[in-house]
Amino acid sequence: MKYTLYIGNKNYSSWSMRAWIVMKHFGIEFNERLVRFDSFDDNSIFKKTILPLNPLGTVPILVDDDLVITDSLAICEYLADKHPTLSLWPNQTRLKAKARCVTAQMHSGYPQIRRYLPMNIEAKFAEWGQIILRDHRQVKQEVAFFDRYISSMLDKSEGAYLFGDFTIADAFYAPMCIRLKNFDITMSPKVADYIDVIWQTKGIKEWVDDALNENDFIAMDEPYRLNNKKRQ
Amino acid sequence: MKYTLYIGNKNYSSWSMRAWIVMKHFGIEFNERLVRFDSFDDNSIFKKTILPLNPLGTVPILVDDDLVITDSLAICEYLADKHPTLSLWPNQTRLKAKARCVTAQMHSGYPQIRRYLPMNIEAKFAEWGQIILRDHRQVKQEVAFFDRYISSMLDKSEGAYLFGDFTIADAFYAPMCIRLKNFDITMSPKVADYIDVIWQTKGIKEWVDDALNENDFIAMDEPYRLNNKKRQ
Ligand SMILES: N[C@@H](CCC(=O)N[C@@H](CS)C(=O)NCC(=O)O)C(=O)O
Ligand SMILES: N[C@@H](CCC(=O)N[C@@H](CS)C(=O)NCC(=O)O)C(=O)O
Repeated sequence: MKYTLYIGNKNYSSWSMRAWIVMKHFGIEFNERLVRFDSFDDNSIFKKTILPLNPLGTVPILVDDDLVITDSLAICEYLADKHPTLSLWPNQTRLKAKARCVTAQMHSGYPQIRRYLPMNIEAKFAEWGQIILRDHRQVKQEVAFFDRYISSMLDKSEGAYLFGDFTIADAFYAPMCIRLKNFDITMSPKVADYIDVIWQTKGIKEWVDDALNENDFIAMDEPYRLNNKKRQ
Repeated sequence: MKYTLYIGNKNYSSWSMRAWIVMKHFGIEFNERLVRFDSFDDNSIFKKTILPLNPLGTVPILVDDDLVITDSLAICEYLADKHPTLSLWPNQTRLKAKARCVTAQMHSGYPQIRRYLPMNIEAKFAEWGQIILRDHRQVKQEVAFFDRYISSMLDKSEGAYLFGDFTIADAFYAPMCIRLKNFDITMSPKVADYIDVIWQTKGIKEWVDDALNENDFIAMDEPYRLNNKKRQ
């Protein structure tokens, strides 16, 4: 039986994106169920669809026969175990440990960037980017740290990705790359190149293209475009 | 060569605790390096010791020969891979996926409980617990969710722990159990029993005993005892 992956709006759902691009990139087939972010209220269609599968009420959700996995990292670990020949993690023990480490750090970190630089693939927020960096010192610190940290991984990498070829770690850093690009945040040249590579990566490019064709403006996810209430 | 595990103060460091109790519980030997939380400023002894190992400046850190792993979840996954016969995760694929799922959810979730109910093993905060639940609706919601979620796992479990025997998942939920007990938050009977089991578990009991003998009052981790500035 094929997997089913529940996701949210492609333009906004940074967590859904991680699992989806891993599956696409590695050619793992699945049925996609996009559940629109009509709202996150208990009586929204989104929550009514998702809560019976996941008491936390979030996407992504992977369904494999009668097994339901409701967290993006656990989904990726599960797929890595089920498809060992695909190398979703680096093969080498040492690199695998490092890749899991930065992935778990992304899973629990960067609260300020998450809050102030939301993912919004179709929007360009260059002016907002400058304002946010100016007004929120902690966003600036997280961005500076991200830049140094990614640089140091790329220095050691034997490929264009964080640990050689594309792995789950890159999938977890992809939404961040999209945010930084859309808010036009200046990064060091090496990291800027990595961000360009990410945008062109198999799986990620497809997600971005789908997002650009979505044309679904969700007000609750639009702290910056909300005032003019029209597409840019 | 033996592992080395860097940790913070046992009374306060909920992340350090997770890796430490997994290693103790499963009898994985290691050298302990406790680095006191003198402060989290860049020029603190804590940061000066930790930053050369971990650019994020956090504990726990596992050192295995020349490999350095700087995230509690990645440490546990690494140990699970290195010691497959110890069953750090449930053996069954399905249960393993579920255990990883709730572990990753703990890794990225419960922001309100983390913020308002910090771990502080030696302190008793019964009065504060009531005040916080009264004043912070979101803490109350997270606690209620936690209660229902743990209950549903215990209903399906074939043992006293979340997935039968003790696994990494229980280690990740242990700091939460300590917080709920110390703030004297009323839980449903089944979850209250689970919390008692957690306190008595091999590895956890040792950590708690060490914490009780630590006698190190760290002001920055004391939002509630700070006013009287003396031990209770
Ligand atoms: N730790 C979860 C987080 C998932 C998450 O927060 N997803 C968002 C969409 S990007 C969501 O469903 N939010 C619904 C809500 O917050 O009510 C994971 O990794 O899967
Ligand atoms: N995601 C990390 C988080 C570790 C963490 O935040 N540790 C705390 C101590 S419990 C710390 O070292 N804090 C130092 C700081 O925040 O500057 C992990 O799972 O290991």
